[in-house]
Amino acid sequence: MEKELSRSRIQFLKKDYSRGFIADCGFKAVNYKRGYLESRLKVLNRHRQQDHYIHAGVIATMADHTAGYAAFSLVPEDHRILTIEFKINFLEAAYGQALVCRSRILREGGQILVGESEVFDQRGREEALVAKAMVTLRSIHESKIKPIQK
Amino acid sequence: MEKELSRSRIQFLKKDYSRGFIADCGFKAVNYKRGYLESRLKVLNRHRQQDHYIHAGVIATMADHTAGYAAFSLVPEDHRILTIEFKINFLEAAYGQALVCRSRILREGGQILVGESEVFDQRGREEALVAKAMVTLRSIHESKIKPIQK
Amino acid sequence: MEKELSRSRIQFLKKDYSRGFIADCGFKAVNYKRGYLESRLKVLNRHRQQDHYIHAGVIATMADHTAGYAAFSLVPEDHRILTIEFKINFLEAAYGQALVCRSRILREGGQILVGESEVFDQRGREEALVAKAMVTLRSIHESKIKPIQK
Amino acid sequence: MEKELSRSRIQFLKKDYSRGFIADCGFKAVNYKRGYLESRLKVLNRHRQQDHYIHAGVIATMADHTAGYAAFSLVPEDHRILTIEFKINFLEAAYGQALVCRSRILREGGQILVGESEVFDQRGREEALVAKAMVTLRSIHESKIKPIQK
Repeated sequence: MEKELSRSRIQFLKKDYSRGFIADCGFKAVNYKRGYLESRLKVLNRHRQQDHYIHAGVIATMADHTAGYAAFSLVPEDHRILTIEFKINFLEAAYGQALVCRSRILREGGQILVGESEVFDQRGREEALVAKAMVTLRSIHESKIKPIQK
Repeated sequence: MEKELSRSRIQFLKKDYSRGFIADCGFKAVNYKRGYLESRLKVLNRHRQQDHYIHAGVIATMADHTAGYAAFSLVPEDHRILTIEFKINFLEAAYGQALVCRSRILREGGQILVGESEVFDQRGREEALVAKAMVTLRSIHESKIKPIQK
Repeated sequence: MEKELSRSRIQFLKKDYSRGFIADCGFKAVNYKRGYLESRLKVLNRHRQQDHYIHAGVIATMADHTAGYAAFSLVPEDHRILTIEFKINFLEAAYGQALVCRSRILREGGQILVGESEVFDQRGREEALVAKAMVTLRSIHESKIKPIQK
Repeated sequence: MEKELSRSRIQFLKKDYSRGFIADCGFKAVNYKRGYLESRLKVLNRHRQQDHYIHAGVIATMADHTAGYAAFSLVPEDHRILTIEFKINFLEAAYGQALVCRSRILREGGQILVGESEVFDQRGREEALVAKAMVTLRSIHESKIKPIQK
């Protein structure tokens, strides 16, 4: 009933994942399944805050965007995903060499999708859960996206 | 009873606001009062997402960091602020030439502070409320910040 | 442009506010405007928790339901309001003789509405803000409400 | 290292779970482990809302209180748990004959604990996930709980 993603759709989604702010920050989509996405960031000094921890905004951006693209794998190809809201808890400070985010969709069907994202901090060979987010998303037809003059 | 911030403390806070990821993104602290901060971002193409709107992660980063520094004006100078969690609602799409964030602290006293941030999208001479966040923060003594090897 | 609520609509909404669990708990709608509602609870011992404070669940129920009915004043009469999600911060302990909740809608238009609720604890003649919530709501046509067999 | 709960501690916690508003509503603790609690509610008409679904406030109260008591199993016996904030997504309408809530603590250690609660709606022999919450809690010494005059 629930068909798997085609290889070409996965290629499209992975490439589309890293545009604009996301490409600028360096986030990459690495592992896609229907309703699931794992993304990755190689941490640079520019991602840190005043005390050298990874900035909460980096982690939040990753949690939001990865949930959004996990949702994007579940809707028709002429639909887009917008974030209605998200909430994120920071469980411990992140300071490792990479972040990994794993997002899965808890609720699909209809216009409202709900996903959750777990962000892990890679410290050498270990991985610690440093943040968890719940993300409420909306699927809309691409014709309803108002074009923006750059 | 509640003394105003000294000019030198305001200077310190404004400068400290823009470090690491925040400096990299281009956010600036522009107007400080005790428990209140207004920040600003000149929007560039790198802040946008796939449909040319300003990325939710940019808005969330601004809402979090500005609330954090609003809180930072309320605690002793040897304390630091960490974000415990935040929640943000995106009220409409943002696409203007600048973002303005106004954060104020709703609850102070003790270790837990709660702030709210409103993010406005500047479109020519008009300003629209595009996001609102509630941010839970923690004040800790600087000696408890674990030093990070870069 | 935005017409005020008719007296009969206000009467309907106030009465409809207090049904089921809400009537059982004792919450009442007291002051309605378009997109705004103030509700009230006379606090009884049954509303308290193990340390005699008013239970967080009582406060959360009031914040959610009052925002929902503030939204209900903005949609066509054949629509219903469902809560998609809410987030609530408890700013200080509540222990007074009554609670007052004031909810207003920040975003209307379309199917998704966002409201915020402030809950105040009445202690003699004083009133303290004890909780603040952001509530995401959905307006749907009544024909889409699946009937439930009791 | 992490010792299991004693039988007498479990008995104390289960009994303490159902006081005040929680006892009034009919919620019961049914299965306790260290950092984990399952609770249950037999649904009555008084728990429903205007369209006969189970009220969001009932579900939110259960999610909050069950996470709080999951946290209570992790702190010293002379400490109390307060809710700092919670966020809950309602994934689908609940209308069954009972609710089951399963809460587990994601972050312990120190004063701030974070839990998540999943609420399931029992419909005959089936169970559906109808809500998920993230709850931020605080552990404080009982001497800091201000006594309330009833």
